[in-house]
Amino acid sequence: MKLKIKFLKWSAGLPVAILNKKTAEKIGVHPRDRIFIKPFSGNSEKISSGVDIVEKLVREDEVGVSSEIRKRMGLKRGQKVNISLAQSPRSLEFIKKKLNKKRLSEKEIGEIIRDIVNNSLSEPEIALFVSSVYRHGMSMKETVYLTKAILKSGRMLRLNERLVVDKHSIGGIPGNRTTPLVVSICAAAGLIIPKNSSRAITSAAGTADVIETVARVDFSIEEIKKIIGKTNACMVWGGALGMVPADSRIIQIEKMLGVDPEAQLLASIMSKKLAVGSKYILIDIPYGKNAKVTKARALRLKRKFEKMGDYFNKKLKVVLTDGSQPIGNGVGPALEMADVINILDPQKQGPKDLEEKSLFLAGELLELTKKAKKGEGIKIAREILYSGMAFKKFKQIIKAQKGSLKNLKSFNPTGFKKDIFSKEYGEVEEIDNKKINSLARVAGGPADKYAGVYLYLHVGDKVKRGDKIVTLYAESRSRLRQALRFYKEQKPVKIK
Amino acid sequence: MKLKIKFLKWSAGLPVAILNKKTAEKIGVHPRDRIFIKPFSGNSEKISSGVDIVEKLVREDEVGVSSEIRKRMGLKRGQKVNISLAQSPRSLEFIKKKLNKKRLSEKEIGEIIRDIVNNSLSEPEIALFVSSVYRHGMSMKETVYLTKAILKSGRMLRLNERLVVDKHSIGGIPGNRTTPLVVSICAAAGLIIPKNSSRAITSAAGTADVIETVARVDFSIEEIKKIIGKTNACMVWGGALGMVPADSRIIQIEKMLGVDPEAQLLASIMSKKLAVGSKYILIDIPYGKNAKVTKARALRLKRKFEKMGDYFNKKLKVVLTDGSQPIGNGVGPALEMADVINILDPQKQGPKDLEEKSLFLAGELLELTKKAKKGEGIKIAREILYSGMAFKKFKQIIKAQKGSLKNLKSFNPTGFKKDIFSKEYGEVEEIDNKKINSLARVAGGPADKYAGVYLYLHVGDKVKRGDKIVTLYAESRSRLRQALRFYKEQKPVKIK
Repeated sequence: MKLKIKFLKWSAGLPVAILNKKTAEKIGVHPRDRIFIKPFSGNSEKISSGVDIVEKLVREDEVGVSSEIRKRMGLKRGQKVNISLAQSPRSLEFIKKKLNKKRLSEKEIGEIIRDIVNNSLSEPEIALFVSSVYRHGMSMKETVYLTKAILKSGRMLRLNERLVVDKHSIGGIPGNRTTPLVVSICAAAGLIIPKNSSRAITSAAGTADVIETVARVDFSIEEIKKIIGKTNACMVWGGALGMVPADSRIIQIEKMLGVDPEAQLLASIMSKKLAVGSKYILIDIPYGKNAKVTKARALRLKRKFEKMGDYFNKKLKVVLTDGSQPIGNGVGPALEMADVINILDPQKQGPKDLEEKSLFLAGELLELTKKAKKGEGIKIAREILYSGMAFKKFKQIIKAQKGSLKNLKSFNPTGFKKDIFSKEYGEVEEIDNKKINSLARVAGGPADKYAGVYLYLHVGDKVKRGDKIVTLYAESRSRLRQALRFYKEQKPVKIK
Repeated sequence: MKLKIKFLKWSAGLPVAILNKKTAEKIGVHPRDRIFIKPFSGNSEKISSGVDIVEKLVREDEVGVSSEIRKRMGLKRGQKVNISLAQSPRSLEFIKKKLNKKRLSEKEIGEIIRDIVNNSLSEPEIALFVSSVYRHGMSMKETVYLTKAILKSGRMLRLNERLVVDKHSIGGIPGNRTTPLVVSICAAAGLIIPKNSSRAITSAAGTADVIETVARVDFSIEEIKKIIGKTNACMVWGGALGMVPADSRIIQIEKMLGVDPEAQLLASIMSKKLAVGSKYILIDIPYGKNAKVTKARALRLKRKFEKMGDYFNKKLKVVLTDGSQPIGNGVGPALEMADVINILDPQKQGPKDLEEKSLFLAGELLELTKKAKKGEGIKIAREILYSGMAFKKFKQIIKAQKGSLKNLKSFNPTGFKKDIFSKEYGEVEEIDNKKINSLARVAGGPADKYAGVYLYLHVGDKVKRGDKIVTLYAESRSRLRQALRFYKEQKPVKIK
């Protein structure tokens, strides 16, 4: 049926269409059904959408669309589109096949990914996919198919450079914001490092969220090429690029569920590295109590990454690092950016643990690409950092991404913060990664850029009564109250 | 924050609230977050809801609500409610515990069910619960906890009668509409049979959908007691009653996913039987190729039902029946009602297979309650049916449920139907239950009452070229077209 687009200035967080009750009856659409929306002119993609039904807000010859549909399809007010009933997609059967512990073929995985991208699979259906992959895992073959399908669903960055490198952490450690430091050091050393980062999945901040506190992270592929041309590097959000749209959508659901299956993790990371054309890849797997993985699982994952590297013909190295407690002091987008700047700026003093880890990772990349001799990577990285060259490079990248360090406001502009003091004498026994993550999320991160947790201590530090343990930051009174309640109930910092 | 309710005459298929952008910022709500809505006056329940964000449709001091929230909470226009940010519920952790193959405690299952009822768990989260129960199953203990939790979440029908009986089929067989026949026969024989049926889960019609073609199925508990007082029976929809609201919500997601885990099946059926206070329970498990279960699984399920019966101290009998092909001719709400009336009315001729199965089930209940001597149940059931007593009773129940057989319109009022003829000579080899179900759903069932499939043949019947095989009925042109395409692609009736 031919209908006219109506905008309602309405964000639903996902594509939703609104039909008049009478129109819905004519097409045979019931609540919870799905429809296809296809523009009449141009060769714009067809997308699927859930339907809400109204009696008044839209007329019979109109279809209201949420801002997610408008942006995605680039629609104009009053534009004519064709609306048709969408059947439950065949890929749902393939998801159930996986749920029943069967292997999926390349074609089946491709169809699931295609239906995720065109929104034919609903959120509960994607949740079913995530949970069945989480439980039953995927074989190496399936994981390769998944990587290829995710890659195929998006666009590639084709760089005609030899020394394209990349690094990635599997995450799980609050405050572990090594990327901006590693990128600045490596780019200053002459490596090409196009970082295509994600936003937070289960944490309170992803690298893209952190960079966004000072610069833009949403660029077209052409713009990114220019940024890299100028600076050797970029730190952008892959989601905006449309490089791996399937991955972004799956991550959105994983975020909601707090579930992060291994095969999807492998495919997500590898597809992002492949999409930017990296030739040298460094993977950081933090392990330990409260980390995402134990040492045994870290070793298994290492082997899988190495197999994927072989399969896709990349020089890939995996390092296992200590993930037993948060790294750095700030947890939350702006707080982490402040840590990064304090390390980069030779005039300032940043958290030592974050600095050392970043130097180690940068050193590994310098050695992998033969920019440094075996065993000298860290030394060279340290020279680049301490000389201020890395800071200069960082400011250059931020500027190329239309940003400035001045964008980072002084903290707590709205006044919603709370210091928490120790009531006892003792020593810090444990800082629980997961609880610190959750605390920073409850406080509002990653959506509220200035929300989060500032940690004053590390495991083993001595504590006196009245010492500051953490400061909670929030952008609204209700979020601060909830964060404080969470802190009291969950006690993320244990003192013995 | 205190806000005024605004109605938008808007159905989203689930509770959704609409906030103005500025209000959302003040509370700290981001797209995809959830809020609690609680009325200021009265002791109305608090419910959780997803949030859409708009710039204009609602003012800063208002909250727009979908019709699902309005109906559920019985809100008035302009009523003051308190809106607060909802955290991700703790029960999500319990769901993940099950996903990780661990057993759940009574308290944990109780909390999951409570959060499903107050809508704190989102659809993808409920999908995660369904899929983890589907894959890992539940122990008998967990299933009992689940049953009790579902029961506790709703309301009970307390009947002070001795001979309260019930029957239930696990479903999966298109057209298998024995309930209205068994209820009419048993009620005419003096048994009390309060049928609290569900709507379709994965099929094209549930008993509630079928009864709704001629009468109402949504009554309060007080009204139901009156209906039973007058007629010995009722055939109502449990969802409307709020008897087992958790079950209805879970079933809605199962429907969407087409997944129906065994523990949830057991708990769903048992909780409904317990909610109406049945003392004698007959469970029908159709098995066979294309049925929900194989014979081996049917036997396993039988033992589990018997254990549940023992646990809850009920007289429970399980019968295994032939589920290798559809039963009756019509598949779809109104088509199945027509079959039922044709069997009940002594002046008419209905499908023999459906008649015989209904007599068998009614006979079992008559014997279980000692209304008939061992071996004489079917005979007595047949007498009640052929004498017209069952038809009289049926009409009495329909009248008590504010209905009339006249409500059943003659078919195909909109003209969207299509006969399919045989192109060959031969014999019917197979009629695929699942494909016939899907076909009737594609045609529009259960939401479109007059949509569905009419089958003219059974397995083993001889076919000549030009013989009618099926007629497809739909309420819109697009649905009919899709059903026809589905028929051609899937070939649900095999002729050899």
